[in-house]
Amino acid sequence: MSQVICTVDLVLLTLKAGELQVALLKRDKEPFKDVPALPGGFIHAGEDADARAAALRVLLEKTHIATPYLEQLATFSGPARDPRGWSVSIAYYALVSIDIIEQGCSEQIRLASVDRLMQLPFDHKLIVDTAVARLRSKSQYSSLPCYLAGESFTLPQLQRVYEALMGEELNKVSFRRKMNEMGMLEELDGQFGAAGAHRPAQLYRLKPEYRDNLTLLERGL
Amino acid sequence: MSQVICTVDLVLLTLKAGELQVALLKRDKEPFKDVPALPGGFIHAGEDADARAAALRVLLEKTHIATPYLEQLATFSGPARDPRGWSVSIAYYALVSIDIIEQGCSEQIRLASVDRLMQLPFDHKLIVDTAVARLRSKSQYSSLPCYLAGESFTLPQLQRVYEALMGEELNKVSFRRKMNEMGMLEELDGQFGAAGAHRPAQLYRLKPEYRDNLTLLERGL
Repeated sequence: MSQVICTVDLVLLTLKAGELQVALLKRDKEPFKDVPALPGGFIHAGEDADARAAALRVLLEKTHIATPYLEQLATFSGPARDPRGWSVSIAYYALVSIDIIEQGCSEQIRLASVDRLMQLPFDHKLIVDTAVARLRSKSQYSSLPCYLAGESFTLPQLQRVYEALMGEELNKVSFRRKMNEMGMLEELDGQFGAAGAHRPAQLYRLKPEYRDNLTLLERGL
Repeated sequence: MSQVICTVDLVLLTLKAGELQVALLKRDKEPFKDVPALPGGFIHAGEDADARAAALRVLLEKTHIATPYLEQLATFSGPARDPRGWSVSIAYYALVSIDIIEQGCSEQIRLASVDRLMQLPFDHKLIVDTAVARLRSKSQYSSLPCYLAGESFTLPQLQRVYEALMGEELNKVSFRRKMNEMGMLEELDGQFGAAGAHRPAQLYRLKPEYRDNLTLLERGL
């Protein structure tokens, strides 16, 4: 049997002040005690149903957040990434609205802009960069950004989320057509949100059946 | 430290008789001795530089194949997938032309059509299905199918590879335009291949710089 350390790490991404940010936690023990890092932990073979269950458990224990969407990112491995020995980390990423993060253990979570990220312990910088690249490539053709928009949102707000993730401006008419094609939004009856200088705009939310599932566009936006 | 078994498994896909097929090897020991399964093995913490290196080592040892293209697929885990205990398998997939498989240990490899796959040991059926779904979704917008086309090929041959992977007929003109946009093929000077009832067709190959790297189309075919 191989002597390999098995862990999970979580990249929790959110949008704050128009920027994509990642949640970091100060490590509570060695190695790298007190240094901000991705939330992570060992797989508990006696307890966890699989690595995904381990990731959800670790996230809940360390941040009090139960995420509606979690996707396996990739597995990182080797003798040098963890000073304790040859290790495997199965990394997951989750997109959560800032509301959810602020309802969690917000006093312990530090948010850092993914585009101005300091060095992180282990290979956590590589893990974050991999998650951001995956997210940006998927945002073009999926419902993924909706998980960052909060419980309810106007279409202009949702468009700004897509634009922040994709790093480019989108045409309003074709953005609305694509959202319509995906068919995953529902109007909140009689509820309207502020829309800047304009008249109040209809509020929408993700239909219940889409809250745990990604919708993919046939073609990008 | 967690008591978790760490393995790698390989999904080696090829195209034979117009069908996508997966390479299976009879297992040489328990559990499931003599049953055909995906090539796989333990990570050797003292030897392997990372999980990818373990996958390449296992593939070479068990099939004598060195693949030009290997991608991490996903990691499969849990207490029930391996009778030896709570296990993690980091799965990789590779696309190889049938020529390369036949130059390997062909007497030990059994090819099975992915669309008519029997039950397999462990969760290997799920791993194969995941690889096939990934391949089919990627084939639409990448150079991935070229790895199945062999060292050199005519454009009609390459189009048939894309069609077999994607399960649909493609328009010849737009197929050629997309291949041209990707810019990853080079003509083999003065070399021509048979093209059915038609006149001999120009032979192409992947440019050297694309042999280890995927090219992605901005949009699907």
